[in-house]
Amino acid sequence: MNIPTSALSMPDAKEKCGLFGIFGDPAAVDKCFLGMHALQHRGQESAGMAVTDGEMIQGYTGMGLVGEVFDKDRLQKLTQCGQTAIGHVRYSTSGASHAGNAQPLLVEYSRGQVAVAHNGNLVNASLLRREYEEHGHIFQGTSDTEVIIHLLAKPTHVDKPDPLKHVLNHLQGSYCLLFLFPDRIEAVRDPYGIRPLCIGQLENGAYVVASETCALDIVDATLVREVEPGEIVTINADGISSRFFDGPNSVKPAHCIFEHVYFSDPSSMIFGENVHQVRAELGRQLAREAPADADVVIPVPNCARCAAGGFSEESGIPYDRGFTVSHYAGRSFIEPSQPMRDLAVKMKLNVIREVVKDKRLAVIEDSIVRGTTTKGKMGALRRAGAKEIHLRIASPPIRFPCYYGIDFPSHDELIANDKSVDEIRDYLEVDSLAYISLEGMLSCVKKENDNYCTACWSGNYRIPVDHQVSKFSLERYQMKMFD
Amino acid sequence: MNIPTSALSMPDAKEKCGLFGIFGDPAAVDKCFLGMHALQHRGQESAGMAVTDGEMIQGYTGMGLVGEVFDKDRLQKLTQCGQTAIGHVRYSTSGASHAGNAQPLLVEYSRGQVAVAHNGNLVNASLLRREYEEHGHIFQGTSDTEVIIHLLAKPTHVDKPDPLKHVLNHLQGSYCLLFLFPDRIEAVRDPYGIRPLCIGQLENGAYVVASETCALDIVDATLVREVEPGEIVTINADGISSRFFDGPNSVKPAHCIFEHVYFSDPSSMIFGENVHQVRAELGRQLAREAPADADVVIPVPNCARCAAGGFSEESGIPYDRGFTVSHYAGRSFIEPSQPMRDLAVKMKLNVIREVVKDKRLAVIEDSIVRGTTTKGKMGALRRAGAKEIHLRIASPPIRFPCYYGIDFPSHDELIANDKSVDEIRDYLEVDSLAYISLEGMLSCVKKENDNYCTACWSGNYRIPVDHQVSKFSLERYQMKMFD
Amino acid sequence: MNIPTSALSMPDAKEKCGLFGIFGDPAAVDKCFLGMHALQHRGQESAGMAVTDGEMIQGYTGMGLVGEVFDKDRLQKLTQCGQTAIGHVRYSTSGASHAGNAQPLLVEYSRGQVAVAHNGNLVNASLLRREYEEHGHIFQGTSDTEVIIHLLAKPTHVDKPDPLKHVLNHLQGSYCLLFLFPDRIEAVRDPYGIRPLCIGQLENGAYVVASETCALDIVDATLVREVEPGEIVTINADGISSRFFDGPNSVKPAHCIFEHVYFSDPSSMIFGENVHQVRAELGRQLAREAPADADVVIPVPNCARCAAGGFSEESGIPYDRGFTVSHYAGRSFIEPSQPMRDLAVKMKLNVIREVVKDKRLAVIEDSIVRGTTTKGKMGALRRAGAKEIHLRIASPPIRFPCYYGIDFPSHDELIANDKSVDEIRDYLEVDSLAYISLEGMLSCVKKENDNYCTACWSGNYRIPVDHQVSKFSLERYQMKMFD
Amino acid sequence: MNIPTSALSMPDAKEKCGLFGIFGDPAAVDKCFLGMHALQHRGQESAGMAVTDGEMIQGYTGMGLVGEVFDKDRLQKLTQCGQTAIGHVRYSTSGASHAGNAQPLLVEYSRGQVAVAHNGNLVNASLLRREYEEHGHIFQGTSDTEVIIHLLAKPTHVDKPDPLKHVLNHLQGSYCLLFLFPDRIEAVRDPYGIRPLCIGQLENGAYVVASETCALDIVDATLVREVEPGEIVTINADGISSRFFDGPNSVKPAHCIFEHVYFSDPSSMIFGENVHQVRAELGRQLAREAPADADVVIPVPNCARCAAGGFSEESGIPYDRGFTVSHYAGRSFIEPSQPMRDLAVKMKLNVIREVVKDKRLAVIEDSIVRGTTTKGKMGALRRAGAKEIHLRIASPPIRFPCYYGIDFPSHDELIANDKSVDEIRDYLEVDSLAYISLEGMLSCVKKENDNYCTACWSGNYRIPVDHQVSKFSLERYQMKMFD
Repeated sequence: MNIPTSALSMPDAKEKCGLFGIFGDPAAVDKCFLGMHALQHRGQESAGMAVTDGEMIQGYTGMGLVGEVFDKDRLQKLTQCGQTAIGHVRYSTSGASHAGNAQPLLVEYSRGQVAVAHNGNLVNASLLRREYEEHGHIFQGTSDTEVIIHLLAKPTHVDKPDPLKHVLNHLQGSYCLLFLFPDRIEAVRDPYGIRPLCIGQLENGAYVVASETCALDIVDATLVREVEPGEIVTINADGISSRFFDGPNSVKPAHCIFEHVYFSDPSSMIFGENVHQVRAELGRQLAREAPADADVVIPVPNCARCAAGGFSEESGIPYDRGFTVSHYAGRSFIEPSQPMRDLAVKMKLNVIREVVKDKRLAVIEDSIVRGTTTKGKMGALRRAGAKEIHLRIASPPIRFPCYYGIDFPSHDELIANDKSVDEIRDYLEVDSLAYISLEGMLSCVKKENDNYCTACWSGNYRIPVDHQVSKFSLERYQMKMFD
Repeated sequence: MNIPTSALSMPDAKEKCGLFGIFGDPAAVDKCFLGMHALQHRGQESAGMAVTDGEMIQGYTGMGLVGEVFDKDRLQKLTQCGQTAIGHVRYSTSGASHAGNAQPLLVEYSRGQVAVAHNGNLVNASLLRREYEEHGHIFQGTSDTEVIIHLLAKPTHVDKPDPLKHVLNHLQGSYCLLFLFPDRIEAVRDPYGIRPLCIGQLENGAYVVASETCALDIVDATLVREVEPGEIVTINADGISSRFFDGPNSVKPAHCIFEHVYFSDPSSMIFGENVHQVRAELGRQLAREAPADADVVIPVPNCARCAAGGFSEESGIPYDRGFTVSHYAGRSFIEPSQPMRDLAVKMKLNVIREVVKDKRLAVIEDSIVRGTTTKGKMGALRRAGAKEIHLRIASPPIRFPCYYGIDFPSHDELIANDKSVDEIRDYLEVDSLAYISLEGMLSCVKKENDNYCTACWSGNYRIPVDHQVSKFSLERYQMKMFD
Repeated sequence: MNIPTSALSMPDAKEKCGLFGIFGDPAAVDKCFLGMHALQHRGQESAGMAVTDGEMIQGYTGMGLVGEVFDKDRLQKLTQCGQTAIGHVRYSTSGASHAGNAQPLLVEYSRGQVAVAHNGNLVNASLLRREYEEHGHIFQGTSDTEVIIHLLAKPTHVDKPDPLKHVLNHLQGSYCLLFLFPDRIEAVRDPYGIRPLCIGQLENGAYVVASETCALDIVDATLVREVEPGEIVTINADGISSRFFDGPNSVKPAHCIFEHVYFSDPSSMIFGENVHQVRAELGRQLAREAPADADVVIPVPNCARCAAGGFSEESGIPYDRGFTVSHYAGRSFIEPSQPMRDLAVKMKLNVIREVVKDKRLAVIEDSIVRGTTTKGKMGALRRAGAKEIHLRIASPPIRFPCYYGIDFPSHDELIANDKSVDEIRDYLEVDSLAYISLEGMLSCVKKENDNYCTACWSGNYRIPVDHQVSKFSLERYQMKMFD
Repeated sequence: MNIPTSALSMPDAKEKCGLFGIFGDPAAVDKCFLGMHALQHRGQESAGMAVTDGEMIQGYTGMGLVGEVFDKDRLQKLTQCGQTAIGHVRYSTSGASHAGNAQPLLVEYSRGQVAVAHNGNLVNASLLRREYEEHGHIFQGTSDTEVIIHLLAKPTHVDKPDPLKHVLNHLQGSYCLLFLFPDRIEAVRDPYGIRPLCIGQLENGAYVVASETCALDIVDATLVREVEPGEIVTINADGISSRFFDGPNSVKPAHCIFEHVYFSDPSSMIFGENVHQVRAELGRQLAREAPADADVVIPVPNCARCAAGGFSEESGIPYDRGFTVSHYAGRSFIEPSQPMRDLAVKMKLNVIREVVKDKRLAVIEDSIVRGTTTKGKMGALRRAGAKEIHLRIASPPIRFPCYYGIDFPSHDELIANDKSVDEIRDYLEVDSLAYISLEGMLSCVKKENDNYCTACWSGNYRIPVDHQVSKFSLERYQMKMFD
């Protein structure tokens, strides 16, 4: 049993990908590497980079962390390939995880080379794919990104004055895209602005794009602004320029609030707000909605620490560390000869017994997906002597699948799908359990409520989904099997 | 400087690929592995296998030797994927050698999955590719095999009663192809029969196909027959069946005689004859055409040993080993801090001084391509005390590029391109040099002269080549750079 | 430039090693693996295990993290070697880091086999080694552990009724030792009790020993007690038994207080107290001694989080996260083509700008060694807009080298060696800087002051050190060079 | 099942090691690498090098082929360590094959550093080891080389005017040794001259030592002479000097004739003669002693090719290739899901059917050890249609174990141990079988008969062996288990 970091530290949800791009910097490859490293939390399965010198695009992708795929030697070789680069990190899952799907996807079509990196999920990818197959196209991978390139290569598109616009108007779902052409980067965000994408500038004037601002910080870039929903930002030798493929503000945004709750780095600015501060406010709101009669507030590391701070502040109950975290869990392989209780939890976390013993705990968690690891953590607190456990969740119960890029487990595996809060409380064996309300959560972010997607909690899907077509329907076949 | 085995043991010529397929055997994956191992001399760069259980095709490809790409663990996993498999080994070169081009190529199109493995070279691949790109198709690699699949997926083809026939009628050049569909293997040989392909049968009745009969031997299969030029052989649950896509005997065959001279294993039956025996006859004919007044006949290992035996037999001059061969050269990496004379030769060969000292040598080599390694070998003999060196070449001077699948160096690098035999003799610093004549060479094989391709010697290209389109014109861009 | 996790997360101090042992459990190897994983923070350079079935001892050591050295395959093979095991993790440094020094050290002497694992540093190792060399002994590595085995093998020792006692009486310095004989584990702690070592018991009755209690927790063992200073605890088929080799309480203990400050896991019980709680108290005392007029208390992750909590609690200034931590830094290799400011810090930490901007910060750090990374972190806060930075250190200035097992940089590199607090403040460019006092620090731990070693702060070396003999004097030669 | 090259190409006998040394050359490390590569046939398990700049010795050892252990990077680093080096290749076996036994062994003793590389086997190693253990010494590996260093470090030896002489006088068995001290190489050969060792000189004047002359050739060194039995040759800044530790010609030599029959490279000069020429003469003598009524002479590759040439020459029966050899067998791993007949043979060899079909074959093999692979090869010939098989062996039946450095299988596994020639013929299912006679074999080498060791054929052990002490008695314990 390989217990990857992700399995241990994540609440069973996996998002697809982080993006980074940089145009015209002598250290473009090094900085792209650093930007990808700063976005590593958005995907640990594979990493890839495509680089151009203005004429030819070359690339490399591999399975593993950024620092594993790109060693010193490869970075040196890539540096010789040009001063403009895009990079991509991809999430880890057992299913369709294979080298063939690593990005950026680099192809050749009638207009030359193009590399594409994608963060999101297209809801009409299967439909488009079937259509293209009917026209004789072949598909080598199972990612929906391949579909986008087929659209781009379409003869009726390439002759249009602005082919990219036509391509994007065919896409339905969530997508932040970086296109690398030999002479430019095109950065695109879907009209709903579901996933984040921002623009920064280095001191030397070079522009960068990144999924989160934490990737700007690591290369000392200053945040210029977010890419707007429905916008195409072109970065080339003339600087940046902008156009809208769908008209600005053609639809209300549907920002993924789960980015704030769980995915993004606490240091990042997302949808106009700092993630850490949103999480702290979620904690405060949670304390207001669901106070707990407790001696100490304990976060479940790592994600819930921000919310736990807010809960403590609002409630006046002191904050303390109840768990220590192993930084080495992702590297450990063990398949015990005897079954060992909650091994996955124990490889990652250890309880500080003296903090929890004989105490009434307010335990703060960001979300519950399957519930199995949460149960393990609660059990560990109980065995360490906790007198009472009052579990508070800084997001509402997840009841619906996400079709816009979060890889939740199947509907049936979501614990809140068919269990009431009381039933979940009993399953987790805690003394009390409360979730923040949907309204409460929405009150913690700045924009109007209808600017956010709440589908996984409310079932209100802003972009229609053909329910016949399942989320990963492209993966009818696994093209390559092992990596 | 990485000195791969191939660079040392081959006369600067590299051929593309070996094929193996097996239908309906519980040990299909193991046997495919063994067959690929037996064909390893046809390609050391990458190896791949696609396997089907009748419904889904799964595959794995990797860079390196068969035994490196497929370890025990992978073989076990693949064995669970089905009882029908095709395998491919690919040649090693520095140019377009990368994982993206490894085969079999596994894709999905409107009719489902298909995996394709190819041995040969299409002369109209660039043309076809440009045409498809104009129709909006995208290309992810640089191998001409990808073009074949686009042809297969073409809507006007898929609806035909026998789509494969239509696909094959569009291909020009040399090709042996294995198509793996979920329910069958289709084995194809071009109308000229340029590359070899044969059918065998196991004791349990299962059919196999392979580039050479040596791959039948390793799995204890009996040779049934060769796939005929222009034939499609289908292997499925009903056994084998045959059809011709171009009419049987539509054109005269153009068997690649270099397969006999150099590429194929001496134990194999190729174009109706045993390779070793053809080579021995080449040696005898060489002795008749270009006798040498020598004390001993010395082969240049490994390939010329068969011809040297024939030369000795015909001339009555005793045969002896003048060189020993290192079996470990392919694994050695060294970039000496000081230049060392003929290092590449020395890593592979050592002279047996006592055999050559003060002797007049008749040295037999199969062919000369660039001449540089040959020069190194002759120098080593001279330094070991050879009194006279009479070099005899068991094939005529190579003066023209091959467009049908042999990766000779560029025209300019072929030593016989712009040097006379006397000039080559002077360059190599040998006492005399003679090549077998083209007629002499043709007299050593069984079929009528006009059944063979002699383009690299005669410039007589049986299949017209658009000379504007260079041999590897698909590689306008290197899609992926390092592996 | 390889930036290992340790270089980034540690204040330039590296300790030697963690120990784990288990006797008589069918899953001994798995549990030893888990125990070593839980102690991974004590050493990331190499890992090793020795296992016995009661007759033969077998072992394996390798460079890297526990989960890298021991994969599933090796664990299975080792499991077949027995039900009693000892394990060792070793610190990472560039100097004498090589496979030859990995432990446990497994040798054969006149009484059979023995494996030894060591945590600490002998101050008389060079002296003993020279003495043994004069008697004709040879040394294959540079660790002082090898000296211990030579002592054990000494003919005048092996015939004594209790040879181990005689061996231990020759050792000067700090040492926790695990000896694995085919029939037993002997766990030893030096008379000063400098490093921690504890005994635990599993539900099935099997005994374990470990450097820290966090390694008991991961295998669900209950803490029985610490191994006493000067005690030998034997674990064999009869359970545990104890004897003292130096008389109980022969000297006052000299517990390493740096274990509390920095090395040990916050969840562990060390020297009778919980590490987290000691750290929190250090924070409270620091607030009492050196209050700061600040808006927010910010810990430098990860180690200072406990102290920052205490500082916040005592001062009433709210606690907040100012940094986020990358969990992937240890895997990243980059040597930028252009110099990049504070890259090592940025690979590991990112500032949450919104938390620190325009704020007066009380920044809590556990210790300052060289000062370079601290300077980088302070610079990052300043660039993020901090108005004032009041740095508070939860341990006194480190002015003296450690000869008892902490691998501080050389005397000259310790920033407090020749700089006053004011000078350090100016170097770090912070608005104010204060350290906790030595007395203040000692007031935060339970035992009498003279029970602790304070040498690195006070220069008061409880065990005399021959200053002619430098700390790593055994490494006159590097036996093996690269790993 | 991992089928290493050695298992396939060797007649079940494995020798220990090859040695190379070079003093005072700027490219010493590169040349040592090349020399070790040229000696790779003497050991494929591990490779190691120790290098000195005149003051410090540094080294590196690893498991695998020379080219695998020493990549470009390591060679560059080692080149910076000095201009004098010794290297060692070690044989491959499953038993005590582990990194701990890789050589050169580099240690520190009272006089500083020394590195030692050994080819041979000491018959009194166990005795000496027990003695040293009784004196309190510890042993970390199982190779007898470690014993030699303990002797060297002995206080009563180090003070002697010539300590090495005293050390060597304690050794019984076969040994060629290279000692690397910071200022010199000492090359030693045992008084019986059992294993080969020679001295060469480069054009730049630098001296080299090597197990075989083929390693001189690869670095363009000229053979100076062999190291004499009982001689110590010192190579230092003054050139070479010689002394005898046992008096010159103190005993009759006992050269290992198996070096000629099987181990050494055909190009090498060994014991004053060229290996290839001795083998050819063995073939001629075999033809005289045991003629065969055959159509064709077929060698079993690779080793018997020289002898087959001689057999053909003497008998007048034409020589032909009956087998082709895979150069890739060593890299292949396969554990078939179904048993496959003679898989190990088939992975390495393939029969050229057309050569053997309906023919009466005189098959020449160099030796038979276990007989299992020989049986597989004969079966392959039979299945390919051979009418008659007359097997001729170019050495007598191996009936006794070797205690001087050849790792034959145990006594019981030697097929000639308890089977008559007729019984072996029946087991192998050949039509006739004959071995060369001992006298016949001895007539093929130049020196007087009593200058050779014939123990494995005759049981006449020139150096007394304590039969209580088995050949690998040091391996009471396996110190490390997996590599």
